[in-house]
This record gives sequence, structure tokens and C-alpha cells, in this order.
Amino acid sequence: MSWPDGTPMFHNNVHRFAGNVEKMSAGRMRITVDSPGKHKAPLGIFDMVRSGAYEMGHTASYYYKGKDPATTFFTTTPFGMTPTEMNAWYYYGGGLELLDEVYARHNIVAFPAGNTHLQMGGWFKKEIHSISDLKGLKMRIPGLAGEVVSKVGMKPVSIPPGELYTSLERGTIDAVEWAGPANDEKLGFHKIAPFYYTGWHEPGAELHILINKSSFDTLPEDIKIIITVAAKEASFDMLSESFFRNTIAWQEMKKKNDIKIRTFPDDVLRVFKQANDELLNEIAIKSPLAGKIINSQKAFLDKAKEWSRITDADYLQLR
Amino acid sequence: MSWPDGTPMFHNNVHRFAGNVEKMSAGRMRITVDSPGKHKAPLGIFDMVRSGAYEMGHTASYYYKGKDPATTFFTTTPFGMTPTEMNAWYYYGGGLELLDEVYARHNIVAFPAGNTHLQMGGWFKKEIHSISDLKGLKMRIPGLAGEVVSKVGMKPVSIPPGELYTSLERGTIDAVEWAGPANDEKLGFHKIAPFYYTGWHEPGAELHILINKSSFDTLPEDIKIIITVAAKEASFDMLSESFFRNTIAWQEMKKKNDIKIRTFPDDVLRVFKQANDELLNEIAIKSPLAGKIINSQKAFLDKAKEWSRITDADYLQLR
Repeated sequence: MSWPDGTPMFHNNVHRFAGNVEKMSAGRMRITVDSPGKHKAPLGIFDMVRSGAYEMGHTASYYYKGKDPATTFFTTTPFGMTPTEMNAWYYYGGGLELLDEVYARHNIVAFPAGNTHLQMGGWFKKEIHSISDLKGLKMRIPGLAGEVVSKVGMKPVSIPPGELYTSLERGTIDAVEWAGPANDEKLGFHKIAPFYYTGWHEPGAELHILINKSSFDTLPEDIKIIITVAAKEASFDMLSESFFRNTIAWQEMKKKNDIKIRTFPDDVLRVFKQANDELLNEIAIKSPLAGKIINSQKAFLDKAKEWSRITDADYLQLR
Repeated sequence: MSWPDGTPMFHNNVHRFAGNVEKMSAGRMRITVDSPGKHKAPLGIFDMVRSGAYEMGHTASYYYKGKDPATTFFTTTPFGMTPTEMNAWYYYGGGLELLDEVYARHNIVAFPAGNTHLQMGGWFKKEIHSISDLKGLKMRIPGLAGEVVSKVGMKPVSIPPGELYTSLERGTIDAVEWAGPANDEKLGFHKIAPFYYTGWHEPGAELHILINKSSFDTLPEDIKIIITVAAKEASFDMLSESFFRNTIAWQEMKKKNDIKIRTFPDDVLRVFKQANDELLNEIAIKSPLAGKIINSQKAFLDKAKEWSRITDADYLQLR
């Protein structure tokens, strides 16, 4: 797995998947879980599974956009689908078929297998009043979102987790996006960057189990189905656990600290959206298969947005 | 199962659960699915499973509040939890333990196994401007919600599905709550009751598989886990399918018809909420175990509401 042992939610999720597969198969299929402490390559799961160095790995698909830009959009997209919308797309809207198409080119079978729920927009030392406050701002923010913010003059930087707090304290960075209260609390960002912005960039990151296709193809049918169903259960369970632990951790954090929840101003969001649209267009031009995925997601989301608006959004408002 | 053959989502959900169990167990566990056309007792699943007439059934827990008022809140509660909140409560907030406690009293093992997603508030012939427009209004609306609306002067009525359209047309009823666009479209309510109100009363109805406990206890461990994981997959999958099919059906309906989406006015919602609080208090006094469930859900929801507000609600707004 890509995750250090003990990472809240992530660790549990991989081990419960492995445990379920072993128990459902009455011990015929045993999965040994190694963390980066052992394999030393948290972002190398794709390569290790492709080559067969490992037969199976748990990771985030968007880490591998350098290998194949089409892998990016299976995790999450700025201003994209919520977990409920994403799951509707995966299982009923053609998402799984596109996932198969992309990963088959790399001799890999992939399954959605864990979701972080919506991620917050990050911890900022100063309040953001307009787009000009963002110019030159140095922020730890990875992936597509990093490219989006660089289009509006921010400086996305990559810093190892262990150095984030010190970097923020010393002013090497001005803001940091990590995961959510359950993961962020112990890192302590809120003590020196009290403006906690709501999310726009990762509205529910889906993780994946990657399996070497040659290995998967040798498995008996019942074990294949056991893995498929266990992966789906892992996706569902991690979403529930993430929601639960973040709910509780947020209560604890806000009780003990003066954290200021903010939503980015409308003009900032408008510029982020425009930059994001441009970026997606550029990627679609470079990779036709990525373009096919972007278009499939967009076509569904255009419809899903309306249904989400008169159901989830309306209900959360009136309740 | 409680559902007629072919009921969108419901039918698929039960059959995919049965199929997954059979395939994961390599045929050692076969589940035959009978619908009310065969067993004639759509609301009798609880009794048939308790007695062992059937070893397993798929139904909605809140149908059995006459048998045990504590069964009610495992399905959904007016102004209660969304599916994401409900799942967090079930799997991490003590919900499953309470489910076990309630059903063990009836020699039944129960698993959450399907979710309709948020349900809309129903089709009305006339627009509702204030609480006085509701007085004497006859509506097909079952369960707790029916009791809530009767507290504010409406007349909840129970009418077989096949007679609903005619009843609405002839004025025997003034409004009808059913399920969602994918189920409602073919029933045609929108043609004669064009005001489509957003939901407050069933923010994600969870269905359940009930299994006779004496039968379940005889199963080998691997089959028990297979059933447990398959039920959880069914819960997750039906939520995805419901969201998907309602999204698509809503697009079709609104294209072809002049449907007016409305949210109940604030003063109406306030009165519904108050009536609902009173009702929950009354139930808690009559059944201490129901009270324990109501309190457990309320304690979690008080916290979850805040997290939902700064994540899901905020995101659906800013996107």
C-alpha cells in the first residue's frame, strides 16, 4: 500500500479488505500487506504491480498521471463529482468500463476501493479576500489542484509530510492542504494557520486496488468475485469511516482551538473554475483517452448536479 | 422480498445480493428469491423470517413498528441522517450494535442492505404557501411522516399502489408521496399534480436483509462473512443505482412535462420539525429501546450536521 502503517482510515481500509478476502475464501486467498516502511516506494505501486514485483497494491490512481494521464480522473477532479455521484458514475454510468480500458493497457485490473469523503480546502495563515491575496502564495497542494492554483499565480510546492509543520511555521509555505481533521489534527497546522477553507479541489478522493492482470486471470471465478465484492465493500466502508472520524475529530479540534471556517470568495472560485476548465481541455487534447473520461464524467455530472441540488443540497439546507 | 418483481432498483438489488452470495460461495449457498406474487405477504417478512417460514427476507425495517417500535429508526427518520451520515452511524457510531440488540429479541439477524437515497416530498395538486394550506389535505404518505403530517391537520391515507393515480385524479387524495422519478414516472402523478416538493421525511431509506437467527447460526464462518459483505455491497450498490436512475429519470420527466419544484415554506418546515420532535419523544417514552436508538442517532447527528454543513452542503453550493 502507498500509506504508512497506522494512517487513520487508510491503514484500516487495506487491512479490512485483506481480512475479508481471507475469511470469505476460508483461507484459500491470503494477502500480506506491506507499507512503504518495507517497500520504500509509496508512489511506485503502479510500476510494482505492472511488473509483478507485487501482485496487488492499494494506492491513489492520480499519483500515476506521469505514467498515463488517463489514470488521473478516477480519483477525483476539482469541482467534480461527490462520492455519491462518483459511485453512480462508476457502477451505472460507464466508469468501470473506462477504468478497465485504461488499466488494461498496463496489464492491470483496477477496482475502486476506498474514499476519503470530501476534502477540505486547506489551512491558511491569512484570510483570502480576493484573487490578489493568492498571487505568489506558496501552498502544499498536489495533483490537478496544484496545477489549477499555479494558473492563478500561486506557487504549489511539494514537501515531505514530516517537514510540513516546520515549513508552515517558518514561512517557507503559507498554506497547506492535507486530508481532513482526523488526519490533520496531530500535524497541528491549525495552531499556526487558523483559516480553514472549505473544499473545491477533491470532492471525494477514490482510492484503488491495482492487481497484476496476468496474476488475476489465473484465479478461480469465486476468488475473483470475492475480491471484486470485498473491494467494493472497502470503498463503501472507508467513506463511512472517513465521515465518522472527521466528524468526531472536527468537534475535538474546534472545541480546543479558535479555527475560522471560510469559503473562498466567489471571484476566487470563478477563477479556479476557469483555470480548471482550461486545464482539463489541455489534458483532453494531449490524451484522447483522458478526454473520453473527462467527457463521460462531465456528461453525467451535468445531469447529476441537478438531482443533487433538489435532493442533497436542498435537504442539507432545510434540515 | 417485499417488492413486486421488476420494481426498479429494489428487484435488482435483491437479485444481485443473491447472485453474489452464490458466486462467492462457489454454489454452496443458493438463495431463491420469491416476490409478493408468490408469498402474498409484502409486509409479512418479519413474521415469516421469525417463524422460519422463510430463512431470509429483504424488506424495510420500519414496516414492523407494530411488532416492535424500535425497528422504525433503522430505516430513516424525518429530518434525520443522510445516507452518508447513516452509514457512518451504522458502521462506526454504534448503529449495528443497536440493530443486533433489537432484532435478537425476535430471533432475527439483520443487515443494512439497500438504500433509496433521499426521497422527494411528494406530488401536490396545489402549491403550498403556508401551514393553513395543509389543513385537511389528504395525502398518501406512510410511516412516521404520516404521523407527523397528521399532527398538523393533514389526513394521511393508505391506498394500494394500483389505485393511487385514479384517487389523485378524482380528488380522493390531494397529494402523494411515492419514491423518486425512476419509480414515479410510469405512475404518472406529475401529469395531474405538478408541484413536486423536495424531501424532508425520508432522507435515505435503508432496507434490510432479515435472517432467521437459528438458521444463520448453523452456517459455516466463511458463509456468514460472505453474507455480511454481500449485504453491505448491496446497500452501497442500491444507493448508487438509485442515484443514477433518479438522475436520468428526472431529466426525462422534466423535459416532457411542466413540473414545478418547490421547497416547503420555512413556517411549514418549522411545524413539521416540531411535530416530529414531539412524536419521537412520545415513542421514546413508550419504548425505552426505541428511545435509546433515537438518542444515539441524535447524538451523532448533532455532530455530523456540522461536518456535513462545511463539506457536502458547502461544496454543493459553491460548485
